[in-house]
Amino acid sequence: MNKISIVMGSESDLGTVNEAINVLKKFKVGFDIRVLSAHRAPDNLRSYVEEAHKKGIKVFIAAAGGAAALAGVIASNTNLPVIGIPIETKALKGLDSLLSTVQMPTGVPVATMAIGKSGARNAGIFALEILAISDKKIAVKLAKHRKDMRLKVTKTKIKL
Amino acid sequence: MNKISIVMGSESDLGTVNEAINVLKKFKVGFDIRVLSAHRAPDNLRSYVEEAHKKGIKVFIAAAGGAAALAGVIASNTNLPVIGIPIETKALKGLDSLLSTVQMPTGVPVATMAIGKSGARNAGIFALEILAISDKKIAVKLAKHRKDMRLKVTKTKIKL
Amino acid sequence: MNKISIVMGSESDLGTVNEAINVLKKFKVGFDIRVLSAHRAPDNLRSYVEEAHKKGIKVFIAAAGGAAALAGVIASNTNLPVIGIPIETKALKGLDSLLSTVQMPTGVPVATMAIGKSGARNAGIFALEILAISDKKIAVKLAKHRKDMRLKVTKTKIKL
Amino acid sequence: MNKISIVMGSESDLGTVNEAINVLKKFKVGFDIRVLSAHRAPDNLRSYVEEAHKKGIKVFIAAAGGAAALAGVIASNTNLPVIGIPIETKALKGLDSLLSTVQMPTGVPVATMAIGKSGARNAGIFALEILAISDKKIAVKLAKHRKDMRLKVTKTKIKL
Amino acid sequence: MNKISIVMGSESDLGTVNEAINVLKKFKVGFDIRVLSAHRAPDNLRSYVEEAHKKGIKVFIAAAGGAAALAGVIASNTNLPVIGIPIETKALKGLDSLLSTVQMPTGVPVATMAIGKSGARNAGIFALEILAISDKKIAVKLAKHRKDMRLKVTKTKIKL
Amino acid sequence: MNKISIVMGSESDLGTVNEAINVLKKFKVGFDIRVLSAHRAPDNLRSYVEEAHKKGIKVFIAAAGGAAALAGVIASNTNLPVIGIPIETKALKGLDSLLSTVQMPTGVPVATMAIGKSGARNAGIFALEILAISDKKIAVKLAKHRKDMRLKVTKTKIKL
Amino acid sequence: MNKISIVMGSESDLGTVNEAINVLKKFKVGFDIRVLSAHRAPDNLRSYVEEAHKKGIKVFIAAAGGAAALAGVIASNTNLPVIGIPIETKALKGLDSLLSTVQMPTGVPVATMAIGKSGARNAGIFALEILAISDKKIAVKLAKHRKDMRLKVTKTKIKL
Amino acid sequence: MNKISIVMGSESDLGTVNEAINVLKKFKVGFDIRVLSAHRAPDNLRSYVEEAHKKGIKVFIAAAGGAAALAGVIASNTNLPVIGIPIETKALKGLDSLLSTVQMPTGVPVATMAIGKSGARNAGIFALEILAISDKKIAVKLAKHRKDMRLKVTKTKIKL
Repeated sequence: MNKISIVMGSESDLGTVNEAINVLKKFKVGFDIRVLSAHRAPDNLRSYVEEAHKKGIKVFIAAAGGAAALAGVIASNTNLPVIGIPIETKALKGLDSLLSTVQMPTGVPVATMAIGKSGARNAGIFALEILAISDKKIAVKLAKHRKDMRLKVTKTKIKL
Repeated sequence: MNKISIVMGSESDLGTVNEAINVLKKFKVGFDIRVLSAHRAPDNLRSYVEEAHKKGIKVFIAAAGGAAALAGVIASNTNLPVIGIPIETKALKGLDSLLSTVQMPTGVPVATMAIGKSGARNAGIFALEILAISDKKIAVKLAKHRKDMRLKVTKTKIKL
Repeated sequence: MNKISIVMGSESDLGTVNEAINVLKKFKVGFDIRVLSAHRAPDNLRSYVEEAHKKGIKVFIAAAGGAAALAGVIASNTNLPVIGIPIETKALKGLDSLLSTVQMPTGVPVATMAIGKSGARNAGIFALEILAISDKKIAVKLAKHRKDMRLKVTKTKIKL
Repeated sequence: MNKISIVMGSESDLGTVNEAINVLKKFKVGFDIRVLSAHRAPDNLRSYVEEAHKKGIKVFIAAAGGAAALAGVIASNTNLPVIGIPIETKALKGLDSLLSTVQMPTGVPVATMAIGKSGARNAGIFALEILAISDKKIAVKLAKHRKDMRLKVTKTKIKL
Repeated sequence: MNKISIVMGSESDLGTVNEAINVLKKFKVGFDIRVLSAHRAPDNLRSYVEEAHKKGIKVFIAAAGGAAALAGVIASNTNLPVIGIPIETKALKGLDSLLSTVQMPTGVPVATMAIGKSGARNAGIFALEILAISDKKIAVKLAKHRKDMRLKVTKTKIKL
Repeated sequence: MNKISIVMGSESDLGTVNEAINVLKKFKVGFDIRVLSAHRAPDNLRSYVEEAHKKGIKVFIAAAGGAAALAGVIASNTNLPVIGIPIETKALKGLDSLLSTVQMPTGVPVATMAIGKSGARNAGIFALEILAISDKKIAVKLAKHRKDMRLKVTKTKIKL
Repeated sequence: MNKISIVMGSESDLGTVNEAINVLKKFKVGFDIRVLSAHRAPDNLRSYVEEAHKKGIKVFIAAAGGAAALAGVIASNTNLPVIGIPIETKALKGLDSLLSTVQMPTGVPVATMAIGKSGARNAGIFALEILAISDKKIAVKLAKHRKDMRLKVTKTKIKL
Repeated sequence: MNKISIVMGSESDLGTVNEAINVLKKFKVGFDIRVLSAHRAPDNLRSYVEEAHKKGIKVFIAAAGGAAALAGVIASNTNLPVIGIPIETKALKGLDSLLSTVQMPTGVPVATMAIGKSGARNAGIFALEILAISDKKIAVKLAKHRKDMRLKVTKTKIKL
């Protein structure tokens, strides 16, 4: 069953969003992925979010750039946790995406990650951290993942 | 008949939005005013925008602060012109509101004004400029308004 | 008859402005296009704006970069709606163009779009939205355009 | 049992953090609250985070300002979800806190909220959204909370 | 004879511009002062600039805030040196004024000073430095002024 | 005789500074050019500035990047007008250079131009505008230069 | 003997600089304090820095705001470590001071602290950390100071 | 014996850090170099910092990008001077790294250098300036190094 929904505002965001997808694949957690724009397809987005419960969705990940309303609009239609990935933009380098995603008004939180690929990867990991609270298997895998990461860092040898 | 719809994201935006209202009152152009949040009352906002045609609305003015999705979400539900007023915010002084309002994706324009009160006043004037294209009376009043403004500036005497 | 005037500050802005032109061509709405700088050819710009009425111009679109005074100077010489496109710049990436275009003083509004190509395309669409208020044909075309856009988004299939 | 841990970098952050506390109190969800600085008391912070499991902590909320390492350092010591609140600062207004909290490297996510009080309140709500995935009671309360919020917005009457 | 022209975009800029005036008064250099907006009174501004030669104007000082086109528009109508003072603004603190004044296109320079009162005072001094090139009396006074400034700084005693 | 001194902080600034040089060459105004760093060769810089009078220098042009102290340090050693060119930098794109050049304290003005090549070209033109006040020949050439610029702009034909 | 020299660009910086002074007083380390501007009293500043060795100065602390050249100019005249404090400014809140202090060119480092009072206090502590390398007494005091700081943080009790 | 410790958050920072290494090699001062992340390997980092005394480490240099906690976390575990190098980042160009490194809270100073390679080179030089206080040989070499730098600048000949 799909536990995580990944929504992106434009097909061109896939290069960034792939970082989240790769994490979920590695952890073998099911996900549903869509291109659905808050601005260009608002009705489809709303229907999709409202139907999410039935598909077993527990967490949303939303990636958008510029005046990035996507994550906020999803959050306005659900009480499930919504994680936002600010896409790097051509002119303002994602500062616009970041502020549009993070500066949400009282009552409608979006859990915002870093701009771009690091943020996308961390969105995947954060979604897993949420699921791990009530899913021991994911918790165990996360512990191993972190240990591996630590080992990888500490084993790095600098060649001068 | 109400020709202009003014929507604000929070009651606290009224201090700013009043600048737009005062212009419309002065020009005796009808308007409809609502507090309707893209994030906190998305369904009510959508219904309101979809019904606007029937009330004779020709132009929307939307004021919001922070991750200001309001104008963009209205624009995603109508082909009527949408004018955005970025509200000045406490921490980032409206830079967040400005970027969230102006950096709209291709296909869904929001005509963005300056941050805060000047922007609100200009939103009112810009709405009148749009109406004036097919409404001679407003056009005549706008010409007079501009002349008065010019006179006021040029008559200013500096006392040293 | 030309309904829309497109003015750019420099010939090098054409790469961006083309996005607006393509929209107007697609909608078969007549337009007049000029290179006219607020700073380098102020008298020619003023004459051009003052004569615009005679040519049937209803809306101005102005594109400029850096200390982008063009849209504001046009707006200071007409009561027709002026739409501003902030051109992306080499050093400050269009933040200078954006602030110079949007932060207009009370009384002289410029309807500002996003920095760069998205903004240019949206300038074209917004001009059409203004004309559509009193032009049914354009209104019908805009409705179709939006529907197509929506379909295009919702039909996108992600290949993982 | 305490389900949520709230850590702040300095006692002076309490004015902001209270917004999160009030949400948790309203929802009657237990929480543990500490002043523990990543920079001024690193060992105490680490011990506290490592012991959190035993106290039944499921989610961390961390508030800090300036070079705000607190949320990130907590996240580096746990796989539980960490929510970051960027405190508004005197000089840079919280832009420093925001970037220090949100721009986390790959592997160590911090779910960042808005700068200041809205962010703090949303941190509380987001923590509840996480718990609600496996706690029906909280889910029901959240649904009611959102409904109330919606009603409050839509009932607002503007007096002109 | 008036050698320096001081133009400000709004009467409210006088608090800042006074710093420039005080310098010119102290040096007993004649000046002409006007409120003339590039946006609200463009024709009056142009006429004024074109007539400046006849009044013996050698240097312009222009102060404006927000989308501050004033200095640039003056510079587009004269080959006399134009000095720009970016006025501090409410929301963006003068960053908008600074970029709108300094980021001028090739061919139309504006000599930009610091934001606010320091900038205004320096605008006065810089105008005097220009005049001093062909005016020995002003050069002598400037030398004395600098010496006094130096003495004042070096004589400061810190009381702990 | 050399009338204008051009100082740059690093040899690598020449690509930008050449824009100023080309203007001066075109106008056949003599200039002296040096690489002299405020930070790496402060004594040589000071001696050079103090000797400038003897060489007939009337105006300084200074180009530097990053923590760009060069123009300010020259201005602290002379009452001749100093024009600053903020060099575009790798990380912060010249925003650092701009603020370090323009935000001068009371008493020591630097006439700041735009970041990069436009700024360099305008530095040359502004230096000529200063000299033109007491040099008819340069004034006549400047008038012609501006006319040519205007013609060039207005003759631009857009090919669609 | 005075081991540390504190230089500030303006008497008005004393409110900030006092934070550094209080640290040095508490540690009973001798210091010399001056108002000496890089821009308004360059010769006095240079002489002072060149004579510093004779007074036993080991470390410089320099505080300045805006186009803050002070720390950099000191660093250009000595090989002793120079610590920079960016003063908070009225318009740009110290972002100008920070970039002017930290973005030094290759070869002339300035050890930059945070904007304002925290930065001033830390400048004092950092100067002590430098001295402590070859002064056991200061090292012992620093260890105690840190322990006290840690205790103070961990003993904070939150009253809800 | 190794006197300086260089720590970087990621192997990819080596391109920048090499600038510091080259300075230390040229001065023949011993150094220890590690990849140790505050976020991904916090325990290893802490152990390493606590053991540094035994290896004769006198100064730390820490390089990190984004939410750059590395230098601050080292500083929270030692009283030795810590020098921070903000790494240039893809999206925000190192502004995030700079603010995360420099805006440290009271009591835990990080001596911050410029963003990127200049900052790395200066980190090496600043570390040497600290050691030179109690090491005559390094002081002599530094004096020579500065003289060479000065000569190199002043000998630059511009070819036009």
